[in-house]
Amino acid sequence: MSQVDNAVVSAHLSHVRIVMVNTTLPANIGSALRAMKTMGLSRLVLVQPKTYPHPDIDALAAGATDLIEQIEIVPTLQEAIKDCHLVFGTSARSRTIPWPLLDARPAAEKSLQAVVQNQQEVAVIFGREDRGLTNEELAMANYHVTIPVNSDYGVLNVAQAIQVICYEMRMAAMALTEQKKDPEAAMHVTDEIDMQWDEPLVTHEQMEQFYPHIEKMLAEIEFMDPKNPRLLPLRLRRLFGRIQLDRMEYHLLRGIFSRVQALNNGTWKKSTDKTTGSSEDQSNA
Amino acid sequence: MSQVDNAVVSAHLSHVRIVMVNTTLPANIGSALRAMKTMGLSRLVLVQPKTYPHPDIDALAAGATDLIEQIEIVPTLQEAIKDCHLVFGTSARSRTIPWPLLDARPAAEKSLQAVVQNQQEVAVIFGREDRGLTNEELAMANYHVTIPVNSDYGVLNVAQAIQVICYEMRMAAMALTEQKKDPEAAMHVTDEIDMQWDEPLVTHEQMEQFYPHIEKMLAEIEFMDPKNPRLLPLRLRRLFGRIQLDRMEYHLLRGIFSRVQALNNGTWKKSTDKTTGSSEDQSNA
Repeated sequence: MSQVDNAVVSAHLSHVRIVMVNTTLPANIGSALRAMKTMGLSRLVLVQPKTYPHPDIDALAAGATDLIEQIEIVPTLQEAIKDCHLVFGTSARSRTIPWPLLDARPAAEKSLQAVVQNQQEVAVIFGREDRGLTNEELAMANYHVTIPVNSDYGVLNVAQAIQVICYEMRMAAMALTEQKKDPEAAMHVTDEIDMQWDEPLVTHEQMEQFYPHIEKMLAEIEFMDPKNPRLLPLRLRRLFGRIQLDRMEYHLLRGIFSRVQALNNGTWKKSTDKTTGSSEDQSNA
Repeated sequence: MSQVDNAVVSAHLSHVRIVMVNTTLPANIGSALRAMKTMGLSRLVLVQPKTYPHPDIDALAAGATDLIEQIEIVPTLQEAIKDCHLVFGTSARSRTIPWPLLDARPAAEKSLQAVVQNQQEVAVIFGREDRGLTNEELAMANYHVTIPVNSDYGVLNVAQAIQVICYEMRMAAMALTEQKKDPEAAMHVTDEIDMQWDEPLVTHEQMEQFYPHIEKMLAEIEFMDPKNPRLLPLRLRRLFGRIQLDRMEYHLLRGIFSRVQALNNGTWKKSTDKTTGSSEDQSNA
């Protein structure tokens, strides 16, 4: 994924608040702040926290002091979400009340679309450490959101759940920010496998000079019979075709081929046989 | 996302190991186990943990006792990944050594395709709490993987990073499991990264014989100065690390290196200089 504007992503994410209801352990609040800040979220609302303030919050928040200062404490869940357009309640899959249920990823995509396209405010509500949200609280949500887990074990704690949700929110915000910049590129953003290179990749045209070079070198050292090369040229194309050489690597390999050719035809000799060294040939490494 | 077979997902994920190098805090090992088990991963390898065993591991692992029993302790990173085909090193984005870099999501997609379609073993390596992985350790990876974070803050700890990576691994495993059930949904998989190989891919251990061979050859033809190799060994690792050679290609390249060495030291001569031909050398093409 290419670079996106961090400030724009954070601005979008400022419209997604995390709401924690009746949290018992201050460490979970601190961990939540850290997870939020790492992913660019900034707004935490606590509904009747059991222990607040507490030094564990600051310790676990690991420098997210600006977020600590911005924490909002409210007496009721209603108060926490009253100005929101889209509210998610976190829930295990098998709840007694049936409700529209989304996995974390589509829930995040829906949230950021609501923010970016419709200027909405979004809340994600997390329940108590021991028993989550009550049915009444869950009923205040537009959707329930669940994180796909190993059904044989499935005990994400609240801090881990907030971590995953915040991560998905950031991924969705980045994808939407990128799409706005470059609508055409957005089409295949999700399935793309992208890499960062310090050197530009060589073109198909350059590779069309590479293959004749390696083949000529291999023929010269009689590793390949040019009259009967069998599958060798094809194997080389398959091998170097999937490697996607960058410019530096391309010149490095062609430099090696040239050295082998020179060695073979006697135009280059080992420095032990020569009066001058060859250290200048190192320049492309 | 519709229901998928939890056991099938876990079976796929059993081929993705988490490797933690020189971990200091037992709590991070415990949190890692919990994150892994929640997402269905089962294999944790510790390279020289600073404190092991320790009650904090059990406390934080929260009932993932089967995974605790299966922990593997090894003396070197080499040992931890020697039978792996695809190795990821976790890294911040701005590293001094440039390397093929994937975000967590495409890295997980690539991993699970390697497991499900090509029966490969995958490792994701996590570094020390204070300073991550060394450049030498990072150079053992085929790819670097990074988790997109708020660039103004970006301090995911190792347990949080493992949480996100394990989550993405599960999501990728679920998606592939679903596609297998529903071949039509799998249509868009085919044009992606993956290819069918007629030959098994070589392991990390085999590649650890490959790099010394190419370096020795390059030193012999004085393309590389073994006393001052500069960035060349690193560039070769980066280049051939991302290529994932299959067995045929591996032997093909090593055959070329050997031919160049023999040419250079005079143990092989061109057929024009010899009485017998060398067509039997073609057998590996």
